[in-house]
Amino acid sequence: MKQYRKPEIKDVLIRDGFFSQRLETNLKSIIPAVYRQCKDTGRIDVWKWKEGMPDKPHIFWDSDVAKWIESASYSLIHNPDKEIEAKIDEVVGMMEKAQFPDGYLNSYYINVEPQNRFTFLKNNHELYCAGHLIEAAVAYHEATAKDNLLNIMRRYADLIDKSFGPEEGKIHGYDGHQEIELALVKLYKVTSDKRYLKLAKYFLDERGKQPFFFDIESERRGEKVNASEQLRYKNFQSHLPVRQQKSAEGHAVRCCYMLTGMAESAVESGDSSLLDACREMWKSIVEKRIYITGGVGSTRNGEAFSFDYDLPNNEAYAETCAAIALVFFAGSMLNIDGGAEYADIMETAIYNGILSGVSLDGKKFFYENPLEAIPEKDSFYKGSRAGSVRQEWFGCACCPPNVARFLASMGKYIYSLGEDEIRINLYVGNEANFKVSGVDVKIKMEAEYPWDGKIKIRISPEKESEFTLSTRMPGWCEKASLLINGEKTNLEKLLNNGYINIRRRWCEGDKIELYFDTPVRFVRANPNVRGNIGKVAVRRGPVVYCLEEADNGKNLASIFLNKIPKPIISA
Amino acid sequence: MKQYRKPEIKDVLIRDGFFSQRLETNLKSIIPAVYRQCKDTGRIDVWKWKEGMPDKPHIFWDSDVAKWIESASYSLIHNPDKEIEAKIDEVVGMMEKAQFPDGYLNSYYINVEPQNRFTFLKNNHELYCAGHLIEAAVAYHEATAKDNLLNIMRRYADLIDKSFGPEEGKIHGYDGHQEIELALVKLYKVTSDKRYLKLAKYFLDERGKQPFFFDIESERRGEKVNASEQLRYKNFQSHLPVRQQKSAEGHAVRCCYMLTGMAESAVESGDSSLLDACREMWKSIVEKRIYITGGVGSTRNGEAFSFDYDLPNNEAYAETCAAIALVFFAGSMLNIDGGAEYADIMETAIYNGILSGVSLDGKKFFYENPLEAIPEKDSFYKGSRAGSVRQEWFGCACCPPNVARFLASMGKYIYSLGEDEIRINLYVGNEANFKVSGVDVKIKMEAEYPWDGKIKIRISPEKESEFTLSTRMPGWCEKASLLINGEKTNLEKLLNNGYINIRRRWCEGDKIELYFDTPVRFVRANPNVRGNIGKVAVRRGPVVYCLEEADNGKNLASIFLNKIPKPIISA
Repeated sequence: MKQYRKPEIKDVLIRDGFFSQRLETNLKSIIPAVYRQCKDTGRIDVWKWKEGMPDKPHIFWDSDVAKWIESASYSLIHNPDKEIEAKIDEVVGMMEKAQFPDGYLNSYYINVEPQNRFTFLKNNHELYCAGHLIEAAVAYHEATAKDNLLNIMRRYADLIDKSFGPEEGKIHGYDGHQEIELALVKLYKVTSDKRYLKLAKYFLDERGKQPFFFDIESERRGEKVNASEQLRYKNFQSHLPVRQQKSAEGHAVRCCYMLTGMAESAVESGDSSLLDACREMWKSIVEKRIYITGGVGSTRNGEAFSFDYDLPNNEAYAETCAAIALVFFAGSMLNIDGGAEYADIMETAIYNGILSGVSLDGKKFFYENPLEAIPEKDSFYKGSRAGSVRQEWFGCACCPPNVARFLASMGKYIYSLGEDEIRINLYVGNEANFKVSGVDVKIKMEAEYPWDGKIKIRISPEKESEFTLSTRMPGWCEKASLLINGEKTNLEKLLNNGYINIRRRWCEGDKIELYFDTPVRFVRANPNVRGNIGKVAVRRGPVVYCLEEADNGKNLASIFLNKIPKPIISA
Repeated sequence: MKQYRKPEIKDVLIRDGFFSQRLETNLKSIIPAVYRQCKDTGRIDVWKWKEGMPDKPHIFWDSDVAKWIESASYSLIHNPDKEIEAKIDEVVGMMEKAQFPDGYLNSYYINVEPQNRFTFLKNNHELYCAGHLIEAAVAYHEATAKDNLLNIMRRYADLIDKSFGPEEGKIHGYDGHQEIELALVKLYKVTSDKRYLKLAKYFLDERGKQPFFFDIESERRGEKVNASEQLRYKNFQSHLPVRQQKSAEGHAVRCCYMLTGMAESAVESGDSSLLDACREMWKSIVEKRIYITGGVGSTRNGEAFSFDYDLPNNEAYAETCAAIALVFFAGSMLNIDGGAEYADIMETAIYNGILSGVSLDGKKFFYENPLEAIPEKDSFYKGSRAGSVRQEWFGCACCPPNVARFLASMGKYIYSLGEDEIRINLYVGNEANFKVSGVDVKIKMEAEYPWDGKIKIRISPEKESEFTLSTRMPGWCEKASLLINGEKTNLEKLLNNGYINIRRRWCEGDKIELYFDTPVRFVRANPNVRGNIGKVAVRRGPVVYCLEEADNGKNLASIFLNKIPKPIISA
């Protein structure tokens, strides 16, 4: 069923005119800033917290620290740093000490209400935190081959497996914020222990069954459940069994983390009906519920998907984390179905929905990424709405460390690897080494992307070898050319599912040159998107342009195009 | 200083193709519905409430009952009804029994926390309720000449006068929700007791002084005050002394009630600097902070004015009560300054901002009047946003009784009366009787307004008499004609301050015919109004058209005008 796999980060070294600077910023500014904020707010030292001390633990603090560990771990792969490693080991050491003998590990519950663990899954992010810590453990293991955090998290995962499941005496439930599902598949892949995959699938299959687990849980906690409460289950994607969900609903990050977990566990277990559900949800998102920036979750109300074509510009929520979660989902689907449509969305979201979430100097962040920001509203609403200026940190601090871990793992998304195929998904300059059909192949890509569509790729197998090199034809591109070793080649004939498939016996120093024409494009929205009637977006290559007052003066909404130089394309 | 006065309701009998049906609906449906809702929710019988009974009194219930009494009273003037009068007397009887010996009267405080009266003016609507009860008392007196409620409210007003003021031992404060100010001026006018006028002015002059009264009050109540709390004082218009306020800020109803109180007390006391403040605030509203419908208060956040040109269509709050409050303010200014600009806004708000608040059958109401409603949002947001369907009642039920009292008192706005001048402000068919220059004058107006601009006015003085009949040239009208006794007359020469001044010796049966051309107009907003870029409003005469899905199908936003038949006028 599965066609492609992600490369390992160690095999892809990014050297890119556009991204290298951002990765450097991630290394030097974002990741340290996340650590410092975690330290300053008590998140790092939470394991030493005692009642009466300041900085009382919060239910989702562990997830922030976990994402810092994950991002720092990825960064160590190409930038070994004993100091960072020591910092991670210090935190891991505290966790090891704090972990309960039965494997339980959650800084809020251990410190604040140990008697109540696993009793408020709906709201308290307990398995969500576990999921992020598992991802951190897998990343740290990938980076350093160390087992310390991985062993801790295996013990905790084993406890979760003993506590949840269909068997009598176990909790028949799932977390309010999906995350553990995709994390358990990662843990399965690194440990080959099928229990973790089975548990991931259990959480997914249990979700949305009736009677609702959240009702049962509420009753156990002595709280009344009413119909209006049940209506809210859409926000948790627990209103219906996941296979019956036909449209993307509710909290966008939860939804896309869930879909990633569904795709990953479906492919690992060969569950084709679960994959079909993923494909249907993908359609719902990309055909009716996504911004041109790749942003998803259009409403602040529940940080959620709202309804078809409801994509207001100024009210747009489009959380940075949601764009990241969508890229996770797209990345999984891309490796399963192989179609360039997934890579197109991935590219759009990376350049426009994720990078928008962090300032160029890596010191400030957007949580929400509205498509229209009005500076006067900042002072009027005083923080109750998305502002037009990035902030240093957030009380709910999910976005900054999520950007950090995504940037540090970018290498995983540039290529997909098949049995005898290397696929290029993103045009980010890099040097990579893969084994294809048993042969070591070196690839060097130079790209002036996204500012220009010129791409040079050198392929150097250790010995002459036949395999396919497939390279993506961007969905936005209408005119492209291909040279193989300097020879112009008909590209149309090689196109398949959005990729240019070049199969040949490759020799040391073979050279592919691509040229994607990148004129300025004016893009109209679907006419059902009310807020965009009479408007066009300006796009060039993968980049959606943003007009700012700094360049254009006040009242951006009053800027008119006298004439649109090329026919407007519909998207 | 004051040029004109409002007529009494008894002197103006509305007989109009457009409004008669609505007044009938008010009489037969709205006013009874308000009573029934007040009864069913415990508001009427609140005076008999005892601890432990259901329907615990709420801080602003008295204001709803007061507005019902006020509207029912106005309706009695042309439609005497013993049953309604008996119902009012029953409530008044309960109030009389409940009133404390010192005059205090508030159903919430008397029943729930009598020891705490006058300790939480900022939030608890205590003087706001008193104000509405005073207005009710004045109206019931106007309708029936009965003194029962008036005497009750004089006793209460006397207590308030003893409790608030600059003297030592009194509370140096004011209410969080303005209303008492304009009510006290009404009480002064009906009783000629200057203490009430002085008290109204005290409340206005005290407002916004530093140290802030709400801070002092909070400290007395043992609550901490911080800077962010003080920032909120804008919402109460207590951030600055009223004469220093240069822009309309905060809660729109409070603001416009305050401005009405300012205008009325300024003119009664000859305070020209207070009037100048009113004029400056008027400009702020009508030049930068008003919808084309006359709606004000563009944001749900505090039901408030936000900032210049921030007039979103779908997010528009534009509370029905705020449009009514604006008409009160406009009506006061119109009688002071006499300019038609006030009548233009009054007319716009009546036809578009107030009537929109009630269904044709008078059974359902809008609290918010957005300029763009999206049915799908109703089900998505489930009541947390303005819906596209009117509701039967609201927990915070200010709007329905406010519409009722406004419609029942429409007669007061049609004319303004001067020493030797009758001014026609609104073209609503009616029969009126006024004394002008010592002579009884009968006026009969027939109007096909707003659907057509033909107006016929018969003027019948009891004896030949010279005076001025001034009739408004609507601000939206570009072509008009005038016949005096069938003779075409140059209208331009008679225009002054937006009124056509016709001075002559009037005889029995004199006839004025006006014709205002009412083509369909396309109106563009100021280009600073972001949400209206590329859009036009469709207007004909005073009516702003509303496109509905019932007539036009789904996706109204996608409707385009191929060609705009007349040049677009800027407004």
